[in-house]
Amino acid sequence: MTSEAITVLGLGNLGRALAETFLRGGHPTTVWNRSAAKVFDLATSGATAASTVAEAVEASELVILVVLDHQAAQQVLSGVDVRGRALVNLTSGTPDEARELARWAEDNGAEYLHGAVYAVPQTIGTAESSINYSGSSAVHERWQKQLALLGKVTFLGEDAGRASGFDVAILSGMYGLIGGFLHAAAVARAGGISATELTPLLLSWLTDMHPALSTFAEEIDSGSYAAGESSLAMNQAGLAMLQRAVEVQGVPFAGLDSLKAMVDLQVDQGHGEESLARTVESFSAVASQRFAG
Amino acid sequence: MTSEAITVLGLGNLGRALAETFLRGGHPTTVWNRSAAKVFDLATSGATAASTVAEAVEASELVILVVLDHQAAQQVLSGVDVRGRALVNLTSGTPDEARELARWAEDNGAEYLHGAVYAVPQTIGTAESSINYSGSSAVHERWQKQLALLGKVTFLGEDAGRASGFDVAILSGMYGLIGGFLHAAAVARAGGISATELTPLLLSWLTDMHPALSTFAEEIDSGSYAAGESSLAMNQAGLAMLQRAVEVQGVPFAGLDSLKAMVDLQVDQGHGEESLARTVESFSAVASQRFAG
Repeated sequence: MTSEAITVLGLGNLGRALAETFLRGGHPTTVWNRSAAKVFDLATSGATAASTVAEAVEASELVILVVLDHQAAQQVLSGVDVRGRALVNLTSGTPDEARELARWAEDNGAEYLHGAVYAVPQTIGTAESSINYSGSSAVHERWQKQLALLGKVTFLGEDAGRASGFDVAILSGMYGLIGGFLHAAAVARAGGISATELTPLLLSWLTDMHPALSTFAEEIDSGSYAAGESSLAMNQAGLAMLQRAVEVQGVPFAGLDSLKAMVDLQVDQGHGEESLARTVESFSAVASQRFAG
Repeated sequence: MTSEAITVLGLGNLGRALAETFLRGGHPTTVWNRSAAKVFDLATSGATAASTVAEAVEASELVILVVLDHQAAQQVLSGVDVRGRALVNLTSGTPDEARELARWAEDNGAEYLHGAVYAVPQTIGTAESSINYSGSSAVHERWQKQLALLGKVTFLGEDAGRASGFDVAILSGMYGLIGGFLHAAAVARAGGISATELTPLLLSWLTDMHPALSTFAEEIDSGSYAAGESSLAMNQAGLAMLQRAVEVQGVPFAGLDSLKAMVDLQVDQGHGEESLARTVESFSAVASQRFAG
């Protein structure tokens, strides 16, 4: 039984982890990188080093692309013959950038699948790694065994921009969590409490919040905020107290100020007794003001 | 066997839930509220209605206080004889406010325990409710069975301000999570993705982040950021892409901009290859600039 050949374009930390995972899975793996030093490293692990993108793409039907950003992805592919290839792009970017490359692939005779990676390079190929894909369902079906080597596969539909759409939203939530965590650690330190003392209590409470967030999601989709158990007015008072407290501790945070301003906007519009989830409506309102101003 | 008498001062949603829980637990419960209407409601459930704070405090050795804020707490207690009482204050506030009331209690012959509640009124008295206390360990020990009726008891030490110190930090983390969640929902909506489609994938990824946050906590306490697997430079690039993407979607968020600025500050100071956790050092730096400017 011959394993399928696979090509990996881009050998940053993530690309290298992908190539190593395919090699461990027994796949003849061809690699290319803009700077050649990283290619030699992998060649000693059994990968075939290609000296040009064209040569690397020629070597395998399945071509994985993971580079710095959309512009780098365009440069790498520019002028390369990709006819008959399954192009799987794991480069981070916006939904429109993914759609643009999907159109380019179609125009050039290739099939395109976009992926958003939820893993650090160290966990690629383990149960902790998860990748959301969208785009060509033919590529997803034909190569699902190989893609599953990298981590849990979730297919989100035929729109090549959809995985990035989820990704941009998930990253927004992630950086909210991280910003809040770092602020919490700064606030704790200002009050003589260590981050390791704080973290177990904090993470336990954040986990307890998840069902409330799922309820928020239902309220947001239905646009019906009337029955909220955590009212805008109650959170307005809580946020005001918190702003005062972190100011006294010497660790204000603009993220908190911005959330408070968006809650204020909803309360000012007469929605104080409705659910905190209604604050989602302030994001577009604030953006409109900004674009108008 | 006679159950101990308990007094609850303040009958907002939370105070009412506390009084009802003590009544269900078989404790003779005396209640007082600034506006009398709420007192009559509870009297029909078997509570004794006191017409003054002094009368309510006289009725029980254990006195629970839960009002709007510190100023309201001071007003309620002003001029009241609290000698020999165990005063448990569940009013939200800053660490210094808790310490101020602890001193007042000591000066007036009472013992003081401060509590921070992690529950909504509906979950008081269930396994989903948790209260962190600090202050008098004598009160915590003497009344732990009664306090345990309300929710899981955690005692954080003799400093009356410590429960509030944890609370301010935990609320900072919580509002980071909530702000990030609402932003994520707004971003998803702008991309044609519903909040209920997004939320399971988002919450799963946020939970997967918890071990990384525990590692951040260790890095923060040790001040040693060298070995971070999620570098400042990598996150700087990710945040720049994300800012661009949410701007295109029409849903920018100042919380994200502020986090990016604090990451930039660390990278500018030459720490790009160190852990993202180092961003915690930017909070005090930003605050210093603000206080200086």
